[in-house]
Amino acid sequence: MTTAGADEDGGHGRAPDHGSTVPSGRASDVTPAGPVPGPTVAGVPRPRPTPGGPATDVAETRPRVGHIQFLNCMPFYWGLVNSGALLDLDLYKDTPDRLSEALVAGELDLGPISLVEYLRHADELVVLPDLAVGSDGPVLSVVLSTQVPVDEIRSVALGSTSRTSVLLARMMLEDRFGVRPRYITMPPDVPMMLREADAAVTIGDVALRAYYEFEQGGPGHRPEVIDLGAAWRDWTGLPMVFAIWAARRSFAGAHPGLVKEVHSALRGGIELALAEVQTVAARASRWEVFDQASLVRYFTTLDFRLGERQLAGVAEFARRAAVRGAVPPPRDIVFADV
Amino acid sequence: MTTAGADEDGGHGRAPDHGSTVPSGRASDVTPAGPVPGPTVAGVPRPRPTPGGPATDVAETRPRVGHIQFLNCMPFYWGLVNSGALLDLDLYKDTPDRLSEALVAGELDLGPISLVEYLRHADELVVLPDLAVGSDGPVLSVVLSTQVPVDEIRSVALGSTSRTSVLLARMMLEDRFGVRPRYITMPPDVPMMLREADAAVTIGDVALRAYYEFEQGGPGHRPEVIDLGAAWRDWTGLPMVFAIWAARRSFAGAHPGLVKEVHSALRGGIELALAEVQTVAARASRWEVFDQASLVRYFTTLDFRLGERQLAGVAEFARRAAVRGAVPPPRDIVFADV
Repeated sequence: MTTAGADEDGGHGRAPDHGSTVPSGRASDVTPAGPVPGPTVAGVPRPRPTPGGPATDVAETRPRVGHIQFLNCMPFYWGLVNSGALLDLDLYKDTPDRLSEALVAGELDLGPISLVEYLRHADELVVLPDLAVGSDGPVLSVVLSTQVPVDEIRSVALGSTSRTSVLLARMMLEDRFGVRPRYITMPPDVPMMLREADAAVTIGDVALRAYYEFEQGGPGHRPEVIDLGAAWRDWTGLPMVFAIWAARRSFAGAHPGLVKEVHSALRGGIELALAEVQTVAARASRWEVFDQASLVRYFTTLDFRLGERQLAGVAEFARRAAVRGAVPPPRDIVFADV
Repeated sequence: MTTAGADEDGGHGRAPDHGSTVPSGRASDVTPAGPVPGPTVAGVPRPRPTPGGPATDVAETRPRVGHIQFLNCMPFYWGLVNSGALLDLDLYKDTPDRLSEALVAGELDLGPISLVEYLRHADELVVLPDLAVGSDGPVLSVVLSTQVPVDEIRSVALGSTSRTSVLLARMMLEDRFGVRPRYITMPPDVPMMLREADAAVTIGDVALRAYYEFEQGGPGHRPEVIDLGAAWRDWTGLPMVFAIWAARRSFAGAHPGLVKEVHSALRGGIELALAEVQTVAARASRWEVFDQASLVRYFTTLDFRLGERQLAGVAEFARRAAVRGAVPPPRDIVFADV
């Protein structure tokens, strides 16, 4: 829905009616007088109106929220649709890497962000409690596909839609398996990647596909598929967190009520979806190459929590990543007040 | 949601399970073997997979459906969310002009299309029965804002997001009011347009705003606002239809079941929304400059039907547009079989 802008007059416009949830910082919601903002163009988040002339009509705009268009976030979407919460969001669907960039660039107010990108931009962000995409053991959809035994890997193709998984794979290869391959970055297509390198790192639906194929193929199947979530827990004893949800700090400061509301919608959405996971999987399986049972297994294997164990996993990953110089030295995580 | 592509093998993929609704033409749904289609980029409909190599896994993809991001189509969105039908659509939100172009270009399978664009591309499209955006009298959101008496209009700024309304305005000015202004096309911003021309034609939320301001301003208010839906009925005695829903003929041929399903979702959605119009308006008013009462009035003023009277309106508009050379000579409308 487009939010119409404010002209000189008023009368038909209305004053904001939910000051109780947005007690301060309303200035950034005031639509400037003058040019009416054009309609939203799909895929291009419109700039949040900045304070301008003496507007007498103000309407708050829906928060611009990112959504990862992978199966791993399908339960969130299902929950947002079924609760109706979607009506109060301006939802932008995209790949994890693009959504991370958009949040960092301020083109989104709130959304999922790759753990690595969060660690690099923590100063600008606040973390939404108890929301994540991770795994406490196998994850199924973050995998290293290799044509040769692990200690013989000399080259690795890294999927271009990932940040955290790529760093995790490098830690694993270099610090755990003791190999020093050369890396190339490519679009996430396993057969193509394996024409260019000994092994390939992929995430999301493509990785899930590779995982299930390997599992069906049985022992000796090539490429061998190594679940990087499982490998991380074997190594550290901790869960791995691939993405968290964060809001821009400036947005959270100006709109604490909205952050609370979106957090509650997301948290409620995932709980609803997991409570009805058979239904969610049956509905999704119509459009996916995975059957209902495979989807149920995937949705219930993923770990959407960000509790104490998960935060310990985050801290451990941050520490190791900082040692490698991939992210700044670890700092305390600042959470949104929800 | 991304639809994963098909690789060599299968096993975890599944055969389509709704052959009953899609009895033929499945070929165009087969994901080619080879490169896995990349994830969908928001705002850029992905190409529908075309038949390629020997894929053994097929998954049907969600129909790519357009949605007008104006308040006039908000009730459809509300209905799609509340029925959950949204989960089975790949919905692209944009302005009417861009959606029309996308449907004509085959980047969408189905969606709203400006009446004029439909008349120009009728050969490639089938019309969904009993769905429209129009009015049987005032429409409130398709308006001519003029600073001078109508018979003194010498220049008109035409909003760039409209097709049908712009043609309707020209018919009205030239054939009914007997003026021959010069026209310029501009982004839809009334104050800006009126700095460049005597009068301005706008649609959607901007126009609704101008209408309500004029109405509140009372007699003598400048700019004067003329409702082009009301003017059309005064002139012809018929309803005006601004947009209809159509599917690409090739898509409807290959996927009659999907067309039926989307039609039913849209029709059911609008019925649900109109039955609960107070709730819809209350929910929307939080984010709009219009209050609940203004939104209820707007949603119930619009005519979402495409019955006999509306089709007579379409025929009359098509005839007059063809006389002006704006569209090809009238032909029979081909409806989708739903």
